[in-house]
Amino acid sequence: MGLTIGIFDSGVGGLTVVRELKRLMPRQPVVYFGDTARTPYGTKGPDTIVSYARENAEFLLEMGARVIVIACHSAASVATDTLRATLDVPVFEVVTPSVQQAVRLTKNRRIGLMGTRATVSSGIYPRLIGREDPEIRVFGQPCPLLVPLVEEGWLRCRETRMIIRRYLRPLKMQQVDTLVLGCTHYPLLKDIISKKAGRRVKIVDPSAQVAEDVCLHLAQNGYGKTTGSQDEDRYFVSDIAPATAGIVRTFLGREVELLVP
Amino acid sequence: MGLTIGIFDSGVGGLTVVRELKRLMPRQPVVYFGDTARTPYGTKGPDTIVSYARENAEFLLEMGARVIVIACHSAASVATDTLRATLDVPVFEVVTPSVQQAVRLTKNRRIGLMGTRATVSSGIYPRLIGREDPEIRVFGQPCPLLVPLVEEGWLRCRETRMIIRRYLRPLKMQQVDTLVLGCTHYPLLKDIISKKAGRRVKIVDPSAQVAEDVCLHLAQNGYGKTTGSQDEDRYFVSDIAPATAGIVRTFLGREVELLVP
Repeated sequence: MGLTIGIFDSGVGGLTVVRELKRLMPRQPVVYFGDTARTPYGTKGPDTIVSYARENAEFLLEMGARVIVIACHSAASVATDTLRATLDVPVFEVVTPSVQQAVRLTKNRRIGLMGTRATVSSGIYPRLIGREDPEIRVFGQPCPLLVPLVEEGWLRCRETRMIIRRYLRPLKMQQVDTLVLGCTHYPLLKDIISKKAGRRVKIVDPSAQVAEDVCLHLAQNGYGKTTGSQDEDRYFVSDIAPATAGIVRTFLGREVELLVP
Repeated sequence: MGLTIGIFDSGVGGLTVVRELKRLMPRQPVVYFGDTARTPYGTKGPDTIVSYARENAEFLLEMGARVIVIACHSAASVATDTLRATLDVPVFEVVTPSVQQAVRLTKNRRIGLMGTRATVSSGIYPRLIGREDPEIRVFGQPCPLLVPLVEEGWLRCRETRMIIRRYLRPLKMQQVDTLVLGCTHYPLLKDIISKKAGRRVKIVDPSAQVAEDVCLHLAQNGYGKTTGSQDEDRYFVSDIAPATAGIVRTFLGREVELLVP
């Protein structure tokens, strides 16, 4: 029997988590909720984000989810404890697995972080990395152009490559040997980022990390052999703008029906 | 005696209106409110935008404003009638003056519109231009990268020039002879846009147009000779993020004290 995984994000970025989950477990049913009407969360206060996260998680539970994945960096930072305390299903989030992976990978204890302005200035990554190893230095680079570049679908443009090179410059100056893609949009630019960062820099992709954790959890609990179909997956967004379908196609690489709750 | 002009926008973009007002009337006092905590408005429903616009206007009146300028395209589209019906001060907005100017300027009746996705898909410009002259065709080009490029302060970068050229390509194919900068951020890119659009294309800048209208109104009502100082101007924002001061400096070309109501 299938165990439905519920994933929510403030927008469509969390679809990179869905993509990784489907890559690892193609037949595990998922239900996605992107809060496109209230995006972005990063600029909102903690209480507001917690109440949105609760609403989103409760909606996913109503839709049959039995595992919750918080695919939004802002919600992961402030709402994880509340959701774990109030929900009786496992709650995963994008930040912790990538923190652990980055700490494991770095040799020179210099980690770079690319993220939205909100994520970088929240200080969540340096704080959690510092708890694992206080000797590690984290260099944050806000990259506000990367989300709109991804949402434009300009994944292979010269402009995109130039902008990524520009954002990476200060991180390369700091000789980071590990680079966290601290925004769920960035995995779509992973190949360019990896190339421009240089062969010696290891890339940490939070979407892939959390998907691995969920996969491991399901396998340990005997849910690894689901025989569902991806036609059972459901994709909800709180607002469908004219561009939304195209952006979703960029993320998933295929057409899906978008539903409004 | 000074008559204070109150300007509000969903964020900092409306500062281009302030800049134009100060250029025309350096000593006319202004009070600005940028609703940075609730930005963007374009993705929100009409009722929400109307209620935000009322709150913003009422705050500006409390701060002594005796003229209100709606410097936000989304609020101008849906909240102007309500504000005019409920406030007993003149209400100006950014859309109508540029519509009239574009209709006056076009010879071949082909007008290009650059704007955010929200403004372009709202259809406000084609609708208002169609009322003036139903023969005119309006070609809309959503330019979602231009706001973050301006907010990064990348006004003279090669990447910015390349992206503008890319956005202009479909408009040039349509042989527009007039181009409306349908977002208050874009005037900061006016020189590049004008150069890439070509000499024959006339540029309509809504921030400059509405400032001219306000200036004319004040002159007609005997307020043209104010002897204030720009030190009396006040700049409010509903949220100060770490990047806000830098972005405001990009817009105004100088440092100002940012206040939170």
